Amino acid sequence: MIKNDRLLRAARKEAVDAVPVWYMRQAGRSQPEYRAIKEKYSLFDITHQPELAAYVTKLPVDNYGVDAAILYKDIMTPLPSIGVDVSIKSGIGPVISNPIQKLSDVENLGQINPESDLPYILDTIKLLTEEQLEVPLIGFSGAPFTLASYMIEGGPSKSYHKTKALMWTQPETWFALMDKLADMVIAYCRAQVKAGASALQIFDSWVGNLNREDYRKFIKPVMTKIFTALQAENVPLIMFGVGASHLVKEWNDLPIDVMGLDWRIKIDEARAQGVEKAVQGNLDPSLLLAPWEVLESKTKEILDMGMKEEGFIFNLGHGVFPEVNPDTLKKLTQFVHEYSSKM
Amino acid sequence: MIKNDRLLRAARKEAVDAVPVWYMRQAGRSQPEYRAIKEKYSLFDITHQPELAAYVTKLPVDNYGVDAAILYKDIMTPLPSIGVDVSIKSGIGPVISNPIQKLSDVENLGQINPESDLPYILDTIKLLTEEQLEVPLIGFSGAPFTLASYMIEGGPSKSYHKTKALMWTQPETWFALMDKLADMVIAYCRAQVKAGASALQIFDSWVGNLNREDYRKFIKPVMTKIFTALQAENVPLIMFGVGASHLVKEWNDLPIDVMGLDWRIKIDEARAQGVEKAVQGNLDPSLLLAPWEVLESKTKEILDMGMKEEGFIFNLGHGVFPEVNPDTLKKLTQFVHEYSSKM
Repeated sequence: MIKNDRLLRAARKEAVDAVPVWYMRQAGRSQPEYRAIKEKYSLFDITHQPELAAYVTKLPVDNYGVDAAILYKDIMTPLPSIGVDVSIKSGIGPVISNPIQKLSDVENLGQINPESDLPYILDTIKLLTEEQLEVPLIGFSGAPFTLASYMIEGGPSKSYHKTKALMWTQPETWFALMDKLADMVIAYCRAQVKAGASALQIFDSWVGNLNREDYRKFIKPVMTKIFTALQAENVPLIMFGVGASHLVKEWNDLPIDVMGLDWRIKIDEARAQGVEKAVQGNLDPSLLLAPWEVLESKTKEILDMGMKEEGFIFNLGHGVFPEVNPDTLKKLTQFVHEYSSKM
Repeated sequence: MIKNDRLLRAARKEAVDAVPVWYMRQAGRSQPEYRAIKEKYSLFDITHQPELAAYVTKLPVDNYGVDAAILYKDIMTPLPSIGVDVSIKSGIGPVISNPIQKLSDVENLGQINPESDLPYILDTIKLLTEEQLEVPLIGFSGAPFTLASYMIEGGPSKSYHKTKALMWTQPETWFALMDKLADMVIAYCRAQVKAGASALQIFDSWVGNLNREDYRKFIKPVMTKIFTALQAENVPLIMFGVGASHLVKEWNDLPIDVMGLDWRIKIDEARAQGVEKAVQGNLDPSLLLAPWEVLESKTKEILDMGMKEEGFIFNLGHGVFPEVNPDTLKKLTQFVHEYSSKM
């Protein structure tokens, strides 16, 4: 039962008693309880055991007092269901043994059936939302470009040369892949909502590598398709990417509720460019290593800008990282709530 | 003796018979002659032997017909001279064993004396400019932020958490480091010009990670100092960084001649934001893997925009990478010359 619905209200641009806060990658990483678990279990083990996954997902709600939980899982999680052979290599990241090179590789991909393919994910959501959480649970998925970048490069990349070359060289293959991934994202997100998620965030983490023209031609149609389909789910839809300030006007055309910004663009600047959606962001996560006075002053600045209009969710501009002291996140959450409730 | 001065003329916004072309990282990487050399010699060996380094530097001028050479060396090259213990680890990049953590670490850094510390670099420049080249040789240096990021993180980073934390937490240490590096950059660049370089490019490759506010406070003063000092050298000064579209207005205030853009921002957009400097860029290097028709059409688009005003240098938005076919770079150079000389 959701008792604290600040996140949902802010996402719909309704009034709130305090600015809602959550942190990308808040579950896992910097939490000592999580590290103790990781000494015994792998990421695979944790995501496959609903009790464990729910415990890790709920930790930051209990420890930091954040206004939303986000499922502990990886953007790669659904890919094996459509036939992508992913393994997570320590120190490297996701490695894919059967990269996409041609149309037949895309045609060979299957369809996802979340209920039978990922029952443990849905069971985790049910456990959390039916029994444990009093805040909204955010379901999520990677977006087609970001997922495709791993599927084409065969692993993490800095430059996405192969991905972009395939996009320009084999548009038929590209759009077939986008379509296949869109179907997966839609089915996967729908199942998460059906299981109890009350908001959805789509991570197009690496799409900022494209310029606006390529975004418009190769990405915007598939994102429009995804968000249009997901609007029927009647939950807030959040879009996020890193280093994507130059795409803000394109994102503004998408049927989303909330635009996630990183720290490279000020909230004032984004709104001056015509952004009328609710905004989520955008503290530079490196600031979590700075002294409290610096962190507080930058946080105030962001809150002062964000709160000029209804519809603001406080978050980082990218994820929490392992070096962050959990006490800092706790103190920051309290500060945002206190500062914003006085305004 | 420089017979082809297109680059210098374009940098000064003078008329040219054809648009000058060069490619970041054109020396090395994708050239078969270079790979044959690398089977016998390390990067260290090559940069320390002027004949070899000059040969590698000149290869793209002979093979591709580009209008400028850029010295084959690394942005890390001058750092050992001031006491930074750098080694290049295969598959990782530069690794630094004595990272900067506090003011005394900065105070312990020495000063560079290029003539005695890096005679082989200056000898390479002399060999090239006095005997071998008929096009301008571009000298270069990394910029303080980018160099500092390696020196503080201890190696390559994706997020620069430690670098930014030090910047916010210990401003005295930060500005002392910026000053020390500025002195190094200035002395190093001056020596390159004295030896024969007729243009300078400063690579602030990773500064796009900062937002405008942090750039203004922590970076702009040192860049102003560097470029102001280097103006006395009377050679064109080129600024470059990746993913830095949001900093274009800040760069426009610097006393530089040429602004290097990556592919995330259109030349028209940059000029619409007030950029009046000469512009260099900005083909997405991934396009070098696309079919010729696609590459040609995108190149035409860039040329049509760039050539609307005097002062345009064709380049990539980032460096050449090993998978690029040298024939593509040759054909592209010819195309830019032919297309632009007809206009």
